[in-house]
Amino acid sequence: MRRIKLTLEFDGTDFFGWQVQAGAAHPVRTVQGVLEAALATLPGARPKAHAAGRTDAGVHALAMVAHYDTDDRIPVAKVPAALNARLPPDVRVLHAEEVPRSFEAQFSCCYRRYLYRMRLLRASRAGSALERRRVLFVPGALDLEAMQRAAPRFEGTRDFAALATQESRTTVRTVYRCRLGAAGPDLTLDIAADGFLRNMVRAVVGTLLWVGEGKLAPEDVSALLAARDRRRAGPNAPPHGLYFAEAGYEPWGTRAEDAE
Amino acid sequence: MRRIKLTLEFDGTDFFGWQVQAGAAHPVRTVQGVLEAALATLPGARPKAHAAGRTDAGVHALAMVAHYDTDDRIPVAKVPAALNARLPPDVRVLHAEEVPRSFEAQFSCCYRRYLYRMRLLRASRAGSALERRRVLFVPGALDLEAMQRAAPRFEGTRDFAALATQESRTTVRTVYRCRLGAAGPDLTLDIAADGFLRNMVRAVVGTLLWVGEGKLAPEDVSALLAARDRRRAGPNAPPHGLYFAEAGYEPWGTRAEDAE
Repeated sequence: MRRIKLTLEFDGTDFFGWQVQAGAAHPVRTVQGVLEAALATLPGARPKAHAAGRTDAGVHALAMVAHYDTDDRIPVAKVPAALNARLPPDVRVLHAEEVPRSFEAQFSCCYRRYLYRMRLLRASRAGSALERRRVLFVPGALDLEAMQRAAPRFEGTRDFAALATQESRTTVRTVYRCRLGAAGPDLTLDIAADGFLRNMVRAVVGTLLWVGEGKLAPEDVSALLAARDRRRAGPNAPPHGLYFAEAGYEPWGTRAEDAE
Repeated sequence: MRRIKLTLEFDGTDFFGWQVQAGAAHPVRTVQGVLEAALATLPGARPKAHAAGRTDAGVHALAMVAHYDTDDRIPVAKVPAALNARLPPDVRVLHAEEVPRSFEAQFSCCYRRYLYRMRLLRASRAGSALERRRVLFVPGALDLEAMQRAAPRFEGTRDFAALATQESRTTVRTVYRCRLGAAGPDLTLDIAADGFLRNMVRAVVGTLLWVGEGKLAPEDVSALLAARDRRRAGPNAPPHGLYFAEAGYEPWGTRAEDAE
């Protein structure tokens, strides 16, 4: 038996997130579900896919990592085309490689990285029709400089209970990077951590938007986290600006491109 | 009565093109149709919209121009928000201004400009899930240099019958610019003309792809046009890579930004 590691891109618009929802009253369309349906038609493949992270409904992926096991003899270079022929067009297998049996997409993962895309609107402008499912449009009057000062204050090993939608056994995580880049009106939050609590990235974005609106100062972030009270942080930003961008299988910072 | 000029962005995916199809057996969703439905709910506006050009099903617009007449007293700066509140999210009014009664979106237009977006695929790569309705994915082995040499050969005042899907009273047009730009794997055809025949831009793209595949040489373009035979040119490229980018109301070349 071989273990195959896949890198997947998907458009989250028409999915109820990554994970198959076994207990759902009605069947819902999930990325794991369509991937496992495709695997089931590959001779020899075991139709069970395991991902580096679970994305929510509407969240996209530039490079989600998943693994599955197979007894087939398909050359791994042909796996992307074989699966893409069986997948709907809103999921694409970008890459496949054989990995040791000890590799686990979830448990071997050293860090996850997300991007959140926003665009500042000019005074009289509407959001974009073409980008409406890809980018969050935000008021042009936001204090961008304050948001950029606030972002790195989420970095470090901390208790992030203030940003979690669900209870977790432990709410301590290490955020390796949290930076807000700007290129003209286009803002991108680049955030990497050993793991994220449910809706945590969207809560970071909602809190940064409060900073941009002047409801919080950049200096308030540490106290907000220390209070561990979800009500003191900003709301969860909508899912359609969020992209799962990378699953890293070497410790953060060991690759040259991780350094800034 | 006032005449209002609108600049519109739309996602063509879910539209059967711009124009209301009065004779259609079943009602079809068109951009003109949803815009006129929105105008009909604005007090004083006459619900008839006229555009600079008619786009086909699946074709997008970054900046379509249209006009309508109205007896209302709504300040023109408030028109975009008023219409956007009444329009579906795949059409956005980007700008509105009052124009003289002599202005006609179609007949005052000096040139139309389209962009066509393509992306070269690497050997084993699939197309993008996120960009599947925005970009045409083409084989990475195309001879890009030959395509870039061929593109300007479509420029000039010529008979473009070889690229027209429908018969027209006259098939002579003036192409002011036809250039293929490349930024990494992303290719963009930038084409401007006094007017385009039906499907003409998509036929230019299909013909350039034949050049990229070695089926035609860049030097063959002039003879192909001179033959006036649609069968000798490449097929119409799909609509989802095509964007109506600009309607110009000053003669081509009179603005500094038109110069290269």
